[in-house]
Amino acid sequence: MRPLASLLATAASAALALSAPTMAQDMAEYIEMFEPLPALPPIPSGTTMSAERIDLGRMLFFEPRISASGVISCATCHNPALGWSDRIPRAVGHDGQVGERNTPTVLNSGFLQAQFWDGREPDLEGQALGPIEADIEMAMSLEEAIERLNEFEIYRDAFAAAFPGEDDPVNPQNVALAIAAFERTLNTPNSPFNRFLKGDEAAMDESQQRGMRLFVDNGCVACHNGPNLSDSMFHRFELPGSTDEGRFVVTGDERDRFAFRTPTLLNVAVTYPYFNNGSVDNLHDAVQLMGQQMLGQDFAQDELDDIVAFLHAMTGEMPRIEIPALP
Amino acid sequence: MRPLASLLATAASAALALSAPTMAQDMAEYIEMFEPLPALPPIPSGTTMSAERIDLGRMLFFEPRISASGVISCATCHNPALGWSDRIPRAVGHDGQVGERNTPTVLNSGFLQAQFWDGREPDLEGQALGPIEADIEMAMSLEEAIERLNEFEIYRDAFAAAFPGEDDPVNPQNVALAIAAFERTLNTPNSPFNRFLKGDEAAMDESQQRGMRLFVDNGCVACHNGPNLSDSMFHRFELPGSTDEGRFVVTGDERDRFAFRTPTLLNVAVTYPYFNNGSVDNLHDAVQLMGQQMLGQDFAQDELDDIVAFLHAMTGEMPRIEIPALP
Repeated sequence: MRPLASLLATAASAALALSAPTMAQDMAEYIEMFEPLPALPPIPSGTTMSAERIDLGRMLFFEPRISASGVISCATCHNPALGWSDRIPRAVGHDGQVGERNTPTVLNSGFLQAQFWDGREPDLEGQALGPIEADIEMAMSLEEAIERLNEFEIYRDAFAAAFPGEDDPVNPQNVALAIAAFERTLNTPNSPFNRFLKGDEAAMDESQQRGMRLFVDNGCVACHNGPNLSDSMFHRFELPGSTDEGRFVVTGDERDRFAFRTPTLLNVAVTYPYFNNGSVDNLHDAVQLMGQQMLGQDFAQDELDDIVAFLHAMTGEMPRIEIPALP
Repeated sequence: MRPLASLLATAASAALALSAPTMAQDMAEYIEMFEPLPALPPIPSGTTMSAERIDLGRMLFFEPRISASGVISCATCHNPALGWSDRIPRAVGHDGQVGERNTPTVLNSGFLQAQFWDGREPDLEGQALGPIEADIEMAMSLEEAIERLNEFEIYRDAFAAAFPGEDDPVNPQNVALAIAAFERTLNTPNSPFNRFLKGDEAAMDESQQRGMRLFVDNGCVACHNGPNLSDSMFHRFELPGSTDEGRFVVTGDERDRFAFRTPTLLNVAVTYPYFNNGSVDNLHDAVQLMGQQMLGQDFAQDELDDIVAFLHAMTGEMPRIEIPALP
């Protein structure tokens, strides 16, 4: 248990603010802490979201032939049928190898300012190529992946259209740019929570509204805030049974041992199981564990019920993506 | 080379018929040999195509959690992005194991009267469960698969809706019935070839029309006939480098050694690579090899070009399937 001083301060101030008697006052506070989800995440400078790039990214996202086996694509673990994740504890990749960590959803991932559980990449462009090369995921060198893509006229044309004026557009950097552009379209607007934040008080029922209050009053909001319900920061958390050292592996900084990036809570009800090793498969247990570990408290059953009901209100409209016809 | 007597007889009679000078007479002949693709394949007696069954089948088709790894579904090898096949020589399944045979497309497979390369099942219901249980494919016992599905209220409800009045609807037989019902919707109407057969003479260009004539005159049509361009029969064929004994493994009948079910030619341009072990990756080589092995002849380059152009006219409209939201 390592409740952070800042976390408690925020929680205390939130609790204070929420003693205000009217919903209108509460709402102002809530909107400031959470923010409704914008239509698109920030687009990094130096990149664009052209239709051609998004289309190419969609093809590449579903393309299994840039894996050594020929059957694993981004969509294998980030499965559109499963909340763009895989709903198994830890990722399964090349030759059935099981990874160390749970697959994070790509939904709304453009709103995160740190990618992977350990934040080893700052943005989706940095993230996109890792799983292609990883021995236990797609297990293909980027050189070979580019060679395979170059065999197809349709890909050569699609890269040329997405990166006009470039001499040699089929290259790893452009693979990353295209996949990231596509991923930035995978957002889930109009969740009950978002509709509530935008003024539709009927969008969340009473239990969900009580859950929101508990979420704020107890300080969950200290880390889970902003439009994506994640501060994109790293917090130490010892998950029973996990030996994963988290961000320490990236930084070597002792303070980062067992620290993980705060995951988004958007669509959390459909992106189980939870935590870095996926060892907890229901929201009640996940919330209780978070309360104990991060806040030093046990929630009562009715509190848990309300917080979980609130978390269910985070489920937005899934992107309707047409499966591409690959060459 | 084992050209069948019946095959040659058919070819000869077809050639005779096609000496008729007018396209109108040719068309009558073509339509009789090929038949335009009906909207739906035959529905076996004792089963139905209710919307609830199709919906459930779609969920099950995309469901990876009825595999031992949790990441392999029907859609892994029968990938909608890849002509509902996988475009690799031989199927890759559980733990990266490589199977003996090339994955057949499920497109229009309801029109086949024998399933699998060796025809060991007569219909889609018989086919559907095999890959779930196969050690090198999804590697899960049906008992365990049913257990997993039963964990989800959404599946329990979907089975109850699809099989009303049954006491225990979540069972292997119903898994097969639902998947088969879904698969019977995966048909590809309106190919240029089909539009041509229906009277739109501009739907195929001159090369494609010459290719059709060659296809008929040379006897390809002896086995590749009917709406699905397959007679659903077994023909001996020794593929260079292949030791697969084909239907002999099923029947033990010496005459079936190296015999394989005639594959559909619908969408053949987008369902490469070809033959039982996927060892041929382009249509020119595949057609030449067929000519040599089955018809005892070498096609000239311009004949090959025309036949391949004709085969490209077999590509129909891909089914637009929405990826289901799984529980």
